[in-house]
Amino acid sequence: MYEVFETKERLSFDNTREAQKVRASLKQKHVFLINLMASPGAGKTTTLVRLLQALKDKYRIGVMEADVDSDVDARTIAQMGVKVIQLHTGGSCHMTADMTNRGMEKMGIEDLDIVILENIGNLVCPAEFDTGANLNLVILSIPEGDDKPLKYPLMFQVGDVLLFNKIDTKEIFDFDEDRCKEYVRKLNPNMEFFAISAKMNQGIDQVVENLEQRMQAWRNSL
Amino acid sequence: MYEVFETKERLSFDNTREAQKVRASLKQKHVFLINLMASPGAGKTTTLVRLLQALKDKYRIGVMEADVDSDVDARTIAQMGVKVIQLHTGGSCHMTADMTNRGMEKMGIEDLDIVILENIGNLVCPAEFDTGANLNLVILSIPEGDDKPLKYPLMFQVGDVLLFNKIDTKEIFDFDEDRCKEYVRKLNPNMEFFAISAKMNQGIDQVVENLEQRMQAWRNSL
Repeated sequence: MYEVFETKERLSFDNTREAQKVRASLKQKHVFLINLMASPGAGKTTTLVRLLQALKDKYRIGVMEADVDSDVDARTIAQMGVKVIQLHTGGSCHMTADMTNRGMEKMGIEDLDIVILENIGNLVCPAEFDTGANLNLVILSIPEGDDKPLKYPLMFQVGDVLLFNKIDTKEIFDFDEDRCKEYVRKLNPNMEFFAISAKMNQGIDQVVENLEQRMQAWRNSL
Repeated sequence: MYEVFETKERLSFDNTREAQKVRASLKQKHVFLINLMASPGAGKTTTLVRLLQALKDKYRIGVMEADVDSDVDARTIAQMGVKVIQLHTGGSCHMTADMTNRGMEKMGIEDLDIVILENIGNLVCPAEFDTGANLNLVILSIPEGDDKPLKYPLMFQVGDVLLFNKIDTKEIFDFDEDRCKEYVRKLNPNMEFFAISAKMNQGIDQVVENLEQRMQAWRNSL
């Protein structure tokens, strides 16, 4: 089962300061926060399910499902036996650091190693608000097209790792992976890329390995 | 060629009142405004190109391409010999009625029958702001999944016509058209549906016929 928490945006908060507070709190609690962002329908939940399958027996994981107003994804995650909370943003198109913080307080993270926030499906607004996460994991699905970094540059600037999802449909869609990488690298030379098919369970191992390395590096720095 | 216009959001405006003003002005000028909305990569521009191919010799059309910060789509439309203006929202994830109005003033609409606004690729925010359009045309692409009306209900509430795009990929993706329609009808019993493939030029004629009927009905009511 899962709880539903109405985490409406409070506009009076300075998001940059709140994000710093979130990061300090995560450091103190030794909890690694991953912020998963993508367009609607890019495969956030399916990818999350694959990551949980690979990680859930090794780490204590909590998932925060942010949605404007539904519980579809929290139900999917709860069925996996993973700790999950459904956050309703009350119409808001993104999660702020304050909303993220209140979600974590409500779910309880003291007993966790990793928190994964599935942000609102949106390539614009979530990129504008630092949630305080240790890692921004961005998904771009093949059917969306390789020109998305040109149109939604900020998302590709703030991302740390970019997953090209639905790679099994590459032959059907005109998606030039190299061209897309080139667009992204101009915005963000540090981005790391992985090609996956969450549905077909392809390429997930490499992503998991990268995430574990990043978590380990972060823990070593504490 | 096309002009680029920075149409930043002005927060002091009452959007509902501004939308009414836009609608009154369109009525006076006999110009029909279509607001095209969808997720990133759902096929807005490709669909727009198909609609323009079918309509541009019969009507005088102007296109407003709203983007956070790129000119990719305006370039595509300009190549078709259609009047077009590129609107940069300066980071904003949606178009307000005021932004729409300033875009139309800049482009000039006195010599037009139809204006098509390609809104920012986003299923959340554009639905929250009435642009003053006479018709909200929404695209949902098959790869995005049939559960999107559950997650982004407002977009499907404010839409008048819903196009299921990339229908040629239906066999690859788990998309139940009937189930999706059922979700939408609960939110919006008046929605009209069409299945198309903009890329393959399938199903466009029926959409064009519907748009022409709607425009004619509107003109008859003036």
